Amino acid sequence: MTGGTRPRKPVVSGSSWVDDRNALLLTDLYELTMAQAYWSGGMQDRAVFSLFVRRLPEERNYLLACGLDPVLAYLEALHPSGEVLRFLRESGFEPLFVDWLADLRFTGDVWAVPEGTPVFAGEPILEVEAPLPEAQLVETFVLNQIHLQTVLASKAARVTAAAGGRPVVDFGLRRMQGADAGLKSARAFYIAGVDATSNVLAGYVYGIPVRGTMAHSYVQAHEDELAAFRAFVRSFPDSTLVVDTYDTVEGVRNVVRLSRELGDGFRVGGVRLDSGDLGALAREARAILDGAGLHAVQIFASGGLDEWEIRGLVERGAPIDGFGVGTSMGVSMDAPTLDMAYKLVSYAGRGRVKLSPGKHTLPGRKQVFRVDGPDGSARDVIALADEDVRGRPLLRKVMERGVRLPGGRESLETARERAAREVRALPERLRRLEAADPGYGVDVSAALAEERDRVERRITDATGERMT
Amino acid sequence: MTGGTRPRKPVVSGSSWVDDRNALLLTDLYELTMAQAYWSGGMQDRAVFSLFVRRLPEERNYLLACGLDPVLAYLEALHPSGEVLRFLRESGFEPLFVDWLADLRFTGDVWAVPEGTPVFAGEPILEVEAPLPEAQLVETFVLNQIHLQTVLASKAARVTAAAGGRPVVDFGLRRMQGADAGLKSARAFYIAGVDATSNVLAGYVYGIPVRGTMAHSYVQAHEDELAAFRAFVRSFPDSTLVVDTYDTVEGVRNVVRLSRELGDGFRVGGVRLDSGDLGALAREARAILDGAGLHAVQIFASGGLDEWEIRGLVERGAPIDGFGVGTSMGVSMDAPTLDMAYKLVSYAGRGRVKLSPGKHTLPGRKQVFRVDGPDGSARDVIALADEDVRGRPLLRKVMERGVRLPGGRESLETARERAAREVRALPERLRRLEAADPGYGVDVSAALAEERDRVERRITDATGERMT
Repeated sequence: MTGGTRPRKPVVSGSSWVDDRNALLLTDLYELTMAQAYWSGGMQDRAVFSLFVRRLPEERNYLLACGLDPVLAYLEALHPSGEVLRFLRESGFEPLFVDWLADLRFTGDVWAVPEGTPVFAGEPILEVEAPLPEAQLVETFVLNQIHLQTVLASKAARVTAAAGGRPVVDFGLRRMQGADAGLKSARAFYIAGVDATSNVLAGYVYGIPVRGTMAHSYVQAHEDELAAFRAFVRSFPDSTLVVDTYDTVEGVRNVVRLSRELGDGFRVGGVRLDSGDLGALAREARAILDGAGLHAVQIFASGGLDEWEIRGLVERGAPIDGFGVGTSMGVSMDAPTLDMAYKLVSYAGRGRVKLSPGKHTLPGRKQVFRVDGPDGSARDVIALADEDVRGRPLLRKVMERGVRLPGGRESLETARERAAREVRALPERLRRLEAADPGYGVDVSAALAEERDRVERRITDATGERMT
Repeated sequence: MTGGTRPRKPVVSGSSWVDDRNALLLTDLYELTMAQAYWSGGMQDRAVFSLFVRRLPEERNYLLACGLDPVLAYLEALHPSGEVLRFLRESGFEPLFVDWLADLRFTGDVWAVPEGTPVFAGEPILEVEAPLPEAQLVETFVLNQIHLQTVLASKAARVTAAAGGRPVVDFGLRRMQGADAGLKSARAFYIAGVDATSNVLAGYVYGIPVRGTMAHSYVQAHEDELAAFRAFVRSFPDSTLVVDTYDTVEGVRNVVRLSRELGDGFRVGGVRLDSGDLGALAREARAILDGAGLHAVQIFASGGLDEWEIRGLVERGAPIDGFGVGTSMGVSMDAPTLDMAYKLVSYAGRGRVKLSPGKHTLPGRKQVFRVDGPDGSARDVIALADEDVRGRPLLRKVMERGVRLPGGRESLETARERAAREVRALPERLRRLEAADPGYGVDVSAALAEERDRVERRITDATGERMT
């Protein structure tokens, strides 16, 4: 293993965050070394890179494309700080290349499927066309962000489907993988139909509804549970109270006691069950609350829930008014990654492919056409960008010469409405939690297949000549 | 579900990063509502919260504690910006409480096991003692960071163990969950024995060795593979060249051709195999390279590797000199989360517990004593903080009145050396990849068990009185 930089003293001690000034460095070293090699070799012609998922995890019938907005923001903001440039110079990059980086702005075009669009294996989610070193440099970050949010939105779409219209609140921040995932997940979840988040920063940054209840520690800090409830509603009269710190049924009874104490002043909105047999406890809690005339007090369930358990509770008719979902959705536990790649498909006007086993690519700039229809007939066609194929084209131009186009700037609400509409339009078998059989049909157009064969032949011929 | 803030227009459009000015908001809403309720109820006595993992995933015989340094940095930096305070006021928090937040500094004490220490289920990794609202407010962030890095360090320790001394380089950034995970993972991996990372920012921020090779796109962008190799070594003569873009064996032959072209100027450090049967291809590549006298050219393998495949390659004697490990380690694919909690264990000098099914806690400030020894005898004892128990105490004071102590500031090298030493000291059965049977022994001291029973009795008696 070579091509390394020298270890050095850290610049930062203590807090360390990624931001616009250092984001250029949040990349694999080879993006920078290749960029220098392209730069020094004069290879600055236009390249097209295509971002897609090679295959869907067994647990997913479709993916929900997500993460475009932060990527476009990154491309708009891309320029390194003086300190970053100094670091690269000290790390052994050529001084003239570092000067080139100092003036770097992203000048390329971007096509993408809008956030909240269902996508399938092999389909381009995003394509970048730019001078080769620029298009190469952004690979790692673009993948990191689209990957994360597509993983999370795709999981959340299953959770909201399972909840069947009952509100779902994201509680996952504490066990998500880091601070950036904590923030970006909230937008991915919101697009996928999650109703609110416990994450206050998501409210601050994105305007997403923020919801919260209370923790067990609040109950524990008081001499008894009823005293805790009494104190909490003094500050937050319409709170949801967590009732399972010591004994769930007794906790619900304490809510009834509180209602008697407060009389007309009682405005508690709900109780939260966080452990035990949630279905049985919800029934018991509902009976106790109704018996005391507290019909308006809702029942909210949390505690290790995933889409399967939520569907079970809903199907068994548990009187649960909303779900708090944490860790399982927060990291997409059953499929925490996708086999997502960002591959060169064209350089200097010629199609490019890769022939590694299991990793073949489709050359050139492309378009995906979606043919809607009932279960049997719905399918997509991956075609060359300039083909005219029946169906709705999914990719649209969102950035031109480094500047966002109107189509590249939309509200979370727009993306959320799209996701709801597009998922509804999918064949019913894909919207189930179980693996769809057959999966969704994705074809490659005749013209694209021909172009792929042509490019593959060009390469194998060149290789073959040398081998003989 | 109530207790929410009103949706609002987003403050930030475009780039959105977590930083020291807004990190206070990267928290669950209930931390802030509880803090206000404590503040308004005059509950500012000292509280102790204990952070621990309830149970180990089946796939882990031990965890490697990690993430302390970023947590201490966060506690030192904790104060919200004016814009954040305005947001909280607009969100409905009491103006006087927001004024209190404006003056907030973390004034508590922290005890923790040093980074790189193996820990087990139920053992406190960190304990915070502070005025109750302060200790409560930091819960979400402290969990988020310790959780992430402990998850990743614990996975990486398995990967480096499987590699048996061969260098391991982290290639995971592109499919890690977000930018913060991308950065923090590098320190967790380095502590766990990973040798280098492809992540340039980790070199900049932490001084971790950065390594890179080249991507398939570089080969594809050139008219043929040999031309690509020729161009790349012009910029980076001692590179590792990726040889599987079209045909691995032919790729290795192209390296041989390059060596003949360059003669004494040939300094290529290695070849990278990234697909196919890595063991067989490594053997074939070694034979071709050795046949051409290129004994110094190393073989580096990557492509969907995890600890099991690495162990298999090592055991079968594949001539591989180093491994690049990406996605599987990057998100800890087989165990992407831990059942980690931060629980109130003492308030105003009295022990506190939780009695929810499966979620009982141990009251009071604690210490973990490690009794080293051969396979049968090694075990830990969780005890009260002031007990004198045989064995090495693992928790040490790292922060006092909000100020870091010398023990709370150490280099990554120190933590890395500790991890290597402490893992070596574990019973052999725990260091295997397979689930250890029996697992590591963890006892609760008699005095702590007695205190737990006493506190549980106090609570059930109080509940029981009301129930009768």
